[in-house]
Amino acid sequence: MQRENLIQQIKEKKTYLCVGLDTDIEKIPGHLKSSDDAVFRFNKEIIDATLDLCVAYKINTAFYEAQGAKGWEAMQKTVDYIPSTHFKIADAKRGDIGNTSHQYAKAFFETIPFDAVTVAPYMGSDSVKPFLDYKNKWAIVLGLTSNEGSRDFEQLQIDENFLFETVIKKTAEWGNEQNLMFVVGATKASEISSIRKIIPDHFLLIPGVGFQGGSLADVSKHGLNKDCGLLVNVSRGIIYAGNKENFAEEVRKIALQYQTEMKDYLRDKW
Amino acid sequence: MQRENLIQQIKEKKTYLCVGLDTDIEKIPGHLKSSDDAVFRFNKEIIDATLDLCVAYKINTAFYEAQGAKGWEAMQKTVDYIPSTHFKIADAKRGDIGNTSHQYAKAFFETIPFDAVTVAPYMGSDSVKPFLDYKNKWAIVLGLTSNEGSRDFEQLQIDENFLFETVIKKTAEWGNEQNLMFVVGATKASEISSIRKIIPDHFLLIPGVGFQGGSLADVSKHGLNKDCGLLVNVSRGIIYAGNKENFAEEVRKIALQYQTEMKDYLRDKW
Repeated sequence: MQRENLIQQIKEKKTYLCVGLDTDIEKIPGHLKSSDDAVFRFNKEIIDATLDLCVAYKINTAFYEAQGAKGWEAMQKTVDYIPSTHFKIADAKRGDIGNTSHQYAKAFFETIPFDAVTVAPYMGSDSVKPFLDYKNKWAIVLGLTSNEGSRDFEQLQIDENFLFETVIKKTAEWGNEQNLMFVVGATKASEISSIRKIIPDHFLLIPGVGFQGGSLADVSKHGLNKDCGLLVNVSRGIIYAGNKENFAEEVRKIALQYQTEMKDYLRDKW
Repeated sequence: MQRENLIQQIKEKKTYLCVGLDTDIEKIPGHLKSSDDAVFRFNKEIIDATLDLCVAYKINTAFYEAQGAKGWEAMQKTVDYIPSTHFKIADAKRGDIGNTSHQYAKAFFETIPFDAVTVAPYMGSDSVKPFLDYKNKWAIVLGLTSNEGSRDFEQLQIDENFLFETVIKKTAEWGNEQNLMFVVGATKASEISSIRKIIPDHFLLIPGVGFQGGSLADVSKHGLNKDCGLLVNVSRGIIYAGNKENFAEEVRKIALQYQTEMKDYLRDKW
């Protein structure tokens, strides 16, 4: 998907919500569990219930891989089911030497046609660049993540900068605003302003709102730019909103709350 | 697999070779390509030809994921085929927030019964620890990798240390020599001595010998410890040694060269 199309979707729907399909087979409603196709059936209902309230879906590959080949099939079916109007993210945190990253890019851009894949930066340029070689596809590189462990290395001080700032600065040179986004955790909203100084125009993928405690208001205040520039992901807070047969109604209610709040933050933009 | 068993295997076979199954369907011999089960059939012949010459197999998950669910099935079949005498590594470079890393651990330790998985350290403690909670399973954390891009971040100077040294020091505190190894690229053999000062007893997984230009002699000189402490991986240099119907014979010849050299380096040990 092109950047312009993504911005157009955000403008039309007044939302920058990304729904995170971290589908844990242990946590889906009981009436679906016995189905051979439980994960896809659950995802399908979530997608049907949220399509007009979000612009993106993020599939956390770990939950699918935990089911082996069958999980991989459910991932493929889910991506095939999401319409082309929506930005499809493989939250896979991949990254390896060049020839291997090239295979990961093939896996998530060709074999399963995602629009974007999250990439871990530790191994440097040749681990990131193969993801940038595809037209209208995106690498979403880890900057500052939402977890406690982000203190261990990401927030190490190197001269005047934190490691995550150095990572963002250097990585930004390898791509542009058309093929590169960054992950910035909502639990670090106060840092978003300083990150915006480094990359004023890039889209940021923001996890950590909801279950992890990040605030949508804070993230929006510090992160929104002239094109919106944010995709705010909520996973557990939305997809496990209900656990009965009508769970999709509960899911929609919560997604609508987020969309309503986002609409408010976008009011002065366009 | 327990550390003692791995050391026992190394002593008995006089080898610390790990054969890397980076099986690219484009590169396997023509007579196998038409098979529905080409990747597994190729791997099976490689395994049969090298079983007595190596102690470990490393599956590079990217090459399997590039084939979608079918690739995941080939990975499962390959792991099932490798006997329990051999250490089975998922070279997957995973790592995410705690609940997600837990799912990755499930994928590679339960759903597919690998002994070890490679882990990217960028996200810190909660991204690594879920892999350390399994008895007789291993996290192999990226320290200093074999690629050019390792200069971008891994080799950044932080006070008196390089980032990779800080990563190794801190990560070593989260586990022990029974559940934690580190990836150290063979192309950085000169650094292995300083890494051995930080972690004298841990096993190191060494990629980069062969195609990437690392020297087995240098790596062995700087890296061997009292228990051997090395798993040296060769992927492309071994598995693509031949491309005719007798390719497995060529594969064996090269693996035997490595084993013979290793036997020599182990001579003074035991």
